[in-house]
Amino acid sequence: MDFAVHGDYGDYKSKAPAAADGAFNRPTYRFQGRVTADGSSGYPAEPGRYHLYVSLACPWAHRSVIVRALKKLEDVVSLSVVDPVRDGRGWAFREGRGFGADPVNGFTLLREAYEASEPGYDGHVSVPVLWDRETGRIVSNNFPDITIDLGTQFERWADTSVDLYPVDLRPEIDALNDLVYRTVNNGVYRCGFATSQEAYEEAVTALFATLDELEERLATGRYLFGDRLTEADVRLWVTLARFDAVYATHFKANLRRIADYPNLWAYARDLYQRPAFGGTTDFDHIKRHYYTTHPQINPTRIVPAGPLLDWNAPHGRDR
Amino acid sequence: MDFAVHGDYGDYKSKAPAAADGAFNRPTYRFQGRVTADGSSGYPAEPGRYHLYVSLACPWAHRSVIVRALKKLEDVVSLSVVDPVRDGRGWAFREGRGFGADPVNGFTLLREAYEASEPGYDGHVSVPVLWDRETGRIVSNNFPDITIDLGTQFERWADTSVDLYPVDLRPEIDALNDLVYRTVNNGVYRCGFATSQEAYEEAVTALFATLDELEERLATGRYLFGDRLTEADVRLWVTLARFDAVYATHFKANLRRIADYPNLWAYARDLYQRPAFGGTTDFDHIKRHYYTTHPQINPTRIVPAGPLLDWNAPHGRDR
Repeated sequence: MDFAVHGDYGDYKSKAPAAADGAFNRPTYRFQGRVTADGSSGYPAEPGRYHLYVSLACPWAHRSVIVRALKKLEDVVSLSVVDPVRDGRGWAFREGRGFGADPVNGFTLLREAYEASEPGYDGHVSVPVLWDRETGRIVSNNFPDITIDLGTQFERWADTSVDLYPVDLRPEIDALNDLVYRTVNNGVYRCGFATSQEAYEEAVTALFATLDELEERLATGRYLFGDRLTEADVRLWVTLARFDAVYATHFKANLRRIADYPNLWAYARDLYQRPAFGGTTDFDHIKRHYYTTHPQINPTRIVPAGPLLDWNAPHGRDR
Repeated sequence: MDFAVHGDYGDYKSKAPAAADGAFNRPTYRFQGRVTADGSSGYPAEPGRYHLYVSLACPWAHRSVIVRALKKLEDVVSLSVVDPVRDGRGWAFREGRGFGADPVNGFTLLREAYEASEPGYDGHVSVPVLWDRETGRIVSNNFPDITIDLGTQFERWADTSVDLYPVDLRPEIDALNDLVYRTVNNGVYRCGFATSQEAYEEAVTALFATLDELEERLATGRYLFGDRLTEADVRLWVTLARFDAVYATHFKANLRRIADYPNLWAYARDLYQRPAFGGTTDFDHIKRHYYTTHPQINPTRIVPAGPLLDWNAPHGRDR
């Protein structure tokens, strides 16, 4: 089995999925089951049935960790963390700081969860994975669905005072998420994994155009949708959290830092200073993962010491 | 002739000069002739006799460009600029933006100046080079001597109101230059070219310890030595000018930016806003050179778009 050619999330070697023009293209997510409150999808919401395999380094996985905490589903959906350092075999379970052995299946490699779900699976092995103990297979590795389902389908056990995906806002949230995904969440990867100057410049221009727009938007409301914290904030925030520490350097997304945007930076700190955000953020996992996993852009695998940022500085957003 | 193994300044491939502990060691500079006012060294100061080969990208060369301008020696010592993009053949003369063909010898490669001076030369081919038209050979590629000689030995033709190396301050200037060289000027290279985490961390710690110290020192004086602009300022400044644009990202010298240090950043702008400093600074040459010349740390050779910095903002240091 040739592990080297299997692209884990972000693990794009020089033979990475890049278009002829040097642009980075993200692979698809093959498992797209949905959990539903009424069970109509075949995966009914139930306490103790589902497990989240995540990496604390990965922004796509971090979203699900945050939503699980915001909805107070810690006792309903279990969670375990993989080793942030990923080699050619992909995400792995090891003992270490903030991660450990697989408590559900005793797997050594996350790849085994994919193999158990689809024998012979040779696609993208990514986190998060939503695992079903009942059928012994992956429900979904499609991260945008996982947070929506955690946020809306477990209401019987969840904190219902938190509505991250309010029905009246869904079209607007979806539209903003789409822009943020293309230009920011995935935009930083398009900066970092571009293999031509042109592809990089297109990505970095689009990224900062959206950040400039969001900076203005956050001048008038505490969150992206006024005073309502939504799924859109969770999705933007995971990228902001990693921005100055990793993306500005490792991915060359360096026109400005988030710390140079007064509103975005205060907004990022406002959320960080809550347990569901800051309490689930591990900068050691984040930095070690990125800087040691992409030899095609950081061959020395040296992890930078900086930048020093005060995430706990007063944010003033509650005025 | 195997050009690939010839280390030009900074051109340290994976087989670069690194100690067993992963620390970067700078090669030596073989040509160490001195120009003297009285000619006792064999190279008497004379107008029209010497030529400087420089790269505007290179901080070691930039020093000599600044001192030549501060001492108003533009009509006394001629100067030409190499192409900032350096491939395996080393620094080269080409037509382009801010550089051009060799006006003195018609060389294609700077290497030819070394070969002309010492047939069979196989050492470090670096800029700056001080060339002697009279003997048709290199006087010096030892950059610390070149600025001292330009600053002190051409007084008959120079602006004598500018004394960059005042006799009474020499011991103190030399001591500060030594610290700044080890931890800052060469310190950033030791960050960027470290091949072990330990060597990197030692370098980055020493670098920022000195920057912290200089930040304090610049709280009480306009320049490093009170109100007297000296050789020490020139040597520090060339590194500050490149710091946020290149070293913070490319060399991972990112604990803080220079822009995060109020005194250092205002001091850097104060000097930038003078023709001898800002007028000799070419950020296009600087960025293109570094990011395209070290595939061992930037294999994609993509040049970052940022950071956006306002070098012309008021500095307030003249109060």
